[in-house]
Amino acid sequence: MLKDKARNRAYKQAIEDNKDIFEGKVILDVGAGTGILSVFAAQAGARKVFAVEASDIYKIAEEVIKENNFEDTIQVIHDRIENVTLPGNIKVDIIISEWMGFYLLHEGMLDSVIWARDHFLKSDGLLFPEAATIYSVPCSVPTMYEEWDNVNGISMKSFASKLRTQASQKPDTTFVKPDQILAEPEVVLWIDLREVTVEDLHRIKVQHIAVANKQGKYQGICIWFTCTFPSSSTEPVILSTDPDEEETHWKQTTVVLPNEADVQESEPIAYELVLTRSENNDRHYNIEVIMLDPEEVEHPEYCSCHMTKCILVRAMLEKYENNDVENA
Amino acid sequence: MLKDKARNRAYKQAIEDNKDIFEGKVILDVGAGTGILSVFAAQAGARKVFAVEASDIYKIAEEVIKENNFEDTIQVIHDRIENVTLPGNIKVDIIISEWMGFYLLHEGMLDSVIWARDHFLKSDGLLFPEAATIYSVPCSVPTMYEEWDNVNGISMKSFASKLRTQASQKPDTTFVKPDQILAEPEVVLWIDLREVTVEDLHRIKVQHIAVANKQGKYQGICIWFTCTFPSSSTEPVILSTDPDEEETHWKQTTVVLPNEADVQESEPIAYELVLTRSENNDRHYNIEVIMLDPEEVEHPEYCSCHMTKCILVRAMLEKYENNDVENA
Repeated sequence: MLKDKARNRAYKQAIEDNKDIFEGKVILDVGAGTGILSVFAAQAGARKVFAVEASDIYKIAEEVIKENNFEDTIQVIHDRIENVTLPGNIKVDIIISEWMGFYLLHEGMLDSVIWARDHFLKSDGLLFPEAATIYSVPCSVPTMYEEWDNVNGISMKSFASKLRTQASQKPDTTFVKPDQILAEPEVVLWIDLREVTVEDLHRIKVQHIAVANKQGKYQGICIWFTCTFPSSSTEPVILSTDPDEEETHWKQTTVVLPNEADVQESEPIAYELVLTRSENNDRHYNIEVIMLDPEEVEHPEYCSCHMTKCILVRAMLEKYENNDVENA
Repeated sequence: MLKDKARNRAYKQAIEDNKDIFEGKVILDVGAGTGILSVFAAQAGARKVFAVEASDIYKIAEEVIKENNFEDTIQVIHDRIENVTLPGNIKVDIIISEWMGFYLLHEGMLDSVIWARDHFLKSDGLLFPEAATIYSVPCSVPTMYEEWDNVNGISMKSFASKLRTQASQKPDTTFVKPDQILAEPEVVLWIDLREVTVEDLHRIKVQHIAVANKQGKYQGICIWFTCTFPSSSTEPVILSTDPDEEETHWKQTTVVLPNEADVQESEPIAYELVLTRSENNDRHYNIEVIMLDPEEVEHPEYCSCHMTKCILVRAMLEKYENNDVENA
């Protein structure tokens, strides 16, 4: 993960751009790992950094901190954040954490960040990052379909079908190329880290009507996330795992459909997406994609799909808007 | 592995180029997997193919074979090759197998191919591939050294040192770029599949004196292999996992040194390489690299290194050769 350049750069820039925020402050790094974020904070002028790491990696953090001469500023605490007591029950000015899992929530540590916020952050304290968004969009998944039609002259469609059955148990973490995306992405979930609760994250359910922006093969749903950092002055730094952006170790997540469908430009694709926290493992989520009949779900007011109803509504709305402009 | 284009293409070409060899013959595919090699053989005109696969993947092989309309030619046998009896104790004309593991031997199935050869192959039968070679060469491993000197402004040399300690327990399977190679590769082992025995593979030990062909950082030993296929007429097909060749799923194998050394062009690098079959798991090997003092080992007669002794010997040999030419 340390080799994830986009990730490191986003955190570094978010912290470096805001030295005025970090200068002289007390910082808590939740899940500090090798201590890289703690060192960024110390470099930015933090007075004190508590680097909390539950795993044995804390030993590496200690060495990295020493190697960079911040052993007086950064204190490594080898424990779960839930067991930590800070010296003198001090509250911190800023929580930094790289807690994001695959499609944000899977194998992530957001619960620990929420705990840290509720127990250690000053009421006017900041979180780096402070917001996160999950997106979804219909896509092609050629690696589960047509790439098996002809493998060196051999038809392996039956194998591809088996792969899809397997993949239905476990979404695929893989790079999706921008040209595989079939519509405008839509928001599955927006999280304000200052306010989100653990309960908010138990089950996320959305219904989307995507409108194909080109002809293509609808073979799955692609999911990714972005995170936004606070900023005192400059444009806020956004760490994005969008297929259009630089590759990260999070890649994208793909839920492949058992059967593909041809879609035409402007065709509506209706689906329901349900993310449910696993009962056996708090840090795991199950994703369910349910295909819906576009005829049977309500389309948004400004739907750009090719269904007669939407074309009529659009024409009517445009007419009203034009009238408004003419009357203005 | 099916996505390994270089691998598939090599097998396909080796079989397709030799249709005259396969035409009307009986073939045994050892470790058939999804059945792709069996289908190549059937496409090349084989009369009968026995596709032996011990794992549950045999079900996929059956479907792939059916999908390609070879269910009359190819018979899938779901068993370990060691338990197989062929109908009427028939002997086969050709054994095909993709048995190669990392650096050829690790997690490979050569023992099964040897068993198949000794029990099922006609005395004049062929093996695809029929020979294999392991190579080694000193190399740079920047991912274990200088890439950690400055990670977004943070020195992580202590972490790199930890990584190297870990890597010493388990050689790294990773792509090595051609510019990381510091000398001419040398042969660790050449295997003639028609003759090799299981005992030959228990322990392989070689001593090499590589001569640096450029200035660089000597940080590890890079190991890879090639396989050669029989050919009746055309140039034999070679499947190569050389860093200079197209990437394969075998990548290369790197044994990283705990400490690096600067080397100059023409400097000799002496090392011993020992591959030992693991006592706990027949399919696993341990690799040991022992650094030797170039002053204390015998150099080859035509050594091109910069040591005085070798320069003198070389000059003398050249003089003799010139005399021979002049006297001729």
